[in-house]
Amino acid sequence: MLSENKFSTIKDILREMNTVDIAQTISEADPENQVKIFRLLPKDSSAEVFSYLDSDTQETVINSITNVEVHNLVEDMFIDDAVDFLEEVPANVVTRVLAQTSRETRDTINKFLRYPEDSAGSIMTVEMAAFQETSTVDEAIDELRRTAQDKESIETCYCLDKSRKLVGSLPLRKLIVARPDKVLSDIMYDDDQLICVNTLDDQETVAEIVRKYDLLSVPVVDNEHRLVGIITIDDIVDVIQEENTEDFEKMALLLPSEDDYLKTGVFRLTKNRIVWLLILMVSATFTGRIITSFEDKLAVYTALTACIPMLMDTGGNAGNQVSTLVIRGLALGSIKPKDYFKILWKEIRVAVMCGLILAAANFARMFLLSKIPFFQTETNISVFLVVCLAMVGAVIVAKTIGCSLPILAKLLHLDPALMAGPMITTIVDALTLLIYFGIATVFITKGILVP
Amino acid sequence: MLSENKFSTIKDILREMNTVDIAQTISEADPENQVKIFRLLPKDSSAEVFSYLDSDTQETVINSITNVEVHNLVEDMFIDDAVDFLEEVPANVVTRVLAQTSRETRDTINKFLRYPEDSAGSIMTVEMAAFQETSTVDEAIDELRRTAQDKESIETCYCLDKSRKLVGSLPLRKLIVARPDKVLSDIMYDDDQLICVNTLDDQETVAEIVRKYDLLSVPVVDNEHRLVGIITIDDIVDVIQEENTEDFEKMALLLPSEDDYLKTGVFRLTKNRIVWLLILMVSATFTGRIITSFEDKLAVYTALTACIPMLMDTGGNAGNQVSTLVIRGLALGSIKPKDYFKILWKEIRVAVMCGLILAAANFARMFLLSKIPFFQTETNISVFLVVCLAMVGAVIVAKTIGCSLPILAKLLHLDPALMAGPMITTIVDALTLLIYFGIATVFITKGILVP
Repeated sequence: MLSENKFSTIKDILREMNTVDIAQTISEADPENQVKIFRLLPKDSSAEVFSYLDSDTQETVINSITNVEVHNLVEDMFIDDAVDFLEEVPANVVTRVLAQTSRETRDTINKFLRYPEDSAGSIMTVEMAAFQETSTVDEAIDELRRTAQDKESIETCYCLDKSRKLVGSLPLRKLIVARPDKVLSDIMYDDDQLICVNTLDDQETVAEIVRKYDLLSVPVVDNEHRLVGIITIDDIVDVIQEENTEDFEKMALLLPSEDDYLKTGVFRLTKNRIVWLLILMVSATFTGRIITSFEDKLAVYTALTACIPMLMDTGGNAGNQVSTLVIRGLALGSIKPKDYFKILWKEIRVAVMCGLILAAANFARMFLLSKIPFFQTETNISVFLVVCLAMVGAVIVAKTIGCSLPILAKLLHLDPALMAGPMITTIVDALTLLIYFGIATVFITKGILVP
Repeated sequence: MLSENKFSTIKDILREMNTVDIAQTISEADPENQVKIFRLLPKDSSAEVFSYLDSDTQETVINSITNVEVHNLVEDMFIDDAVDFLEEVPANVVTRVLAQTSRETRDTINKFLRYPEDSAGSIMTVEMAAFQETSTVDEAIDELRRTAQDKESIETCYCLDKSRKLVGSLPLRKLIVARPDKVLSDIMYDDDQLICVNTLDDQETVAEIVRKYDLLSVPVVDNEHRLVGIITIDDIVDVIQEENTEDFEKMALLLPSEDDYLKTGVFRLTKNRIVWLLILMVSATFTGRIITSFEDKLAVYTALTACIPMLMDTGGNAGNQVSTLVIRGLALGSIKPKDYFKILWKEIRVAVMCGLILAAANFARMFLLSKIPFFQTETNISVFLVVCLAMVGAVIVAKTIGCSLPILAKLLHLDPALMAGPMITTIVDALTLLIYFGIATVFITKGILVP
């Protein structure tokens, strides 16, 4: 339709569409059409659509519109959205945008850009509903009627004293059912019921508080307890997803990256992955050393070699299961380091049960396979016994290591997510081999296992 | 203080505390004190505190209070909280509670209990603000003033036609700034801008919609498009965390479980873990078969055995990294199956780079170790070459499998999360060994590798 210049039809369609969908349509259009569609947007929704565009498209649009358009756009945006946008684009674009904004907006944006990354200050918004605690209900509602259109959330309003210090919160529902002549300080929630965060608090802490207390927004105060902004729950949802993604990445031993996978270059991806691959490869030296020391016996009792991968993988998988549970429990707060001995005792019992079941299944498997010529397996029952005993030992060691290391990491103030599958596997591998060869040696010495 | 019967002091403290904190305190108290504290709560907050208690404590409290108290408690709770509570407690408690509720509440609760688990219907609440579209702004605000106290969220109100069909949404901010004599149907958002979900939609779909459109609540309609409830974002946050936990569990090959780890019994834990451990252990039969077929050569070229764990682990780790990225990308919607060839081409390049770096590092490692007597490693350069070439091959195969299987699972409508580390490792192990032994055979045939 753009090529046919049916602009008024497009305008009508855009007016009916949701801003998020418009943003998606623009992001997927050709670069030359992106600006055309953007300019056809109704005045009152262009700033909102702009906040939902991805940063590449934002840059394209900004580079193609006039200074006056830039000014109007940035002034219409919520401060937190403007800051998000400016954090992602190149410095020359930031300079041009800031030059076009009013002094007041520029000062606010600059203050936000100075907050540490991932702090409450960097994700808050200043468009909140706040009243003097001495106002009456009637005055507050009047003020709200005049200003509500510019607020990001009005479900909860905040009450301030004369020096702008936060003294109470007031759900809108409580405000609108109150008697018009009541003073806010008489009906607001104060003291212990007032939950707030500091500008420098980590966004993860904020997310935890919002989730724990089921808040729709949380007030942000500075060191003098003055209200400087609020963080709304829709931004918290993004924080929660980001933190979860970071945990997934750490557990797979990737260096965390905030970039979109499809847009990340090959060199960057290689860099994010190679570090831990190298570290774990070098750690495998010890596993190699253990096998070398048993080399002579493996050359004689060849059937033992074939079972090494199975024992190592089962040990690794068993360790991975429990470390994932413990890491997730620590992240959500349902497990605390003080629960360690309770967990260890539980895991040892689970390990004994899992180990016995696996050993029995494995005995049956080896026995059946020994009847099928294709698999050419050992028919010697004493080999079966060595493998099955090692299996029980490997699972017990794996579960013990798997629940201990994440908690140890937590106590050492390291990230428990690093103690996930790959790390556990490397350690459990070496221990599994020691157990396996140890049992085999005893069997050989006692003359039970013969070549 | 309870033992000293300082009840009025406790009452004062409780009045100042946040309901979530009170619930936590009660949950951590001795069973006999739990009910005592609960009875000291102010009338208007006991239902809210009760919703935040864990289900064991809820059961203890319900079993110790009178029928009249049960009646008041349930009638004061939001329907979604009451349903959550009843879904967790034993049938005899459910029967007693339902017997004490009014017919109307009981019918509503029963309707909710019939919605499929994890559907929009099962997590919605019926306490929403909804008006006839023919009402005026003034009438709507008046109604809101009378009823707001009982609503779970009033940030967005909904407009209905005569047959209770959902026809529009109206943010409260828009309502309170509108002229009092305007009719709602003139100012509400309708058509494409109106986002709603069906009672039978999966909660994961609902979470995606809420996240995409940054909603604070989403209306739920039945098959006739009649408004039956809303889902608020604080419940969506819980859904998101639940879904993330489920993905973590699936990726570690645990059967998903909604129970708290510390409260789950040993038998249950064993059951959740043993299934996949058994399946993967049996799959390792193929790896064993590959080693068996190469057994004679391994007995001669003993140095090759020592490097098996290192190659297998590195392959597994490399595959795990990419499968985690792809699984997460698919879950968040940033990767789509149609991107497959783009991803594959990217991964092959990353794999070649990672493989070469690892091979070079490994060559250096083996060369250095061969100078240290303790490690007793091979000094034969051709063994180094076989291992390093196999390393490059293993990483390329691992990255290819790691990005392909999750996407294949998605196309087959299976959960991509199952194609994570442990599953990838088992497959990559077998392929790595084939490559390793293949290269070794070529070297032996050509006379480059000699015993």
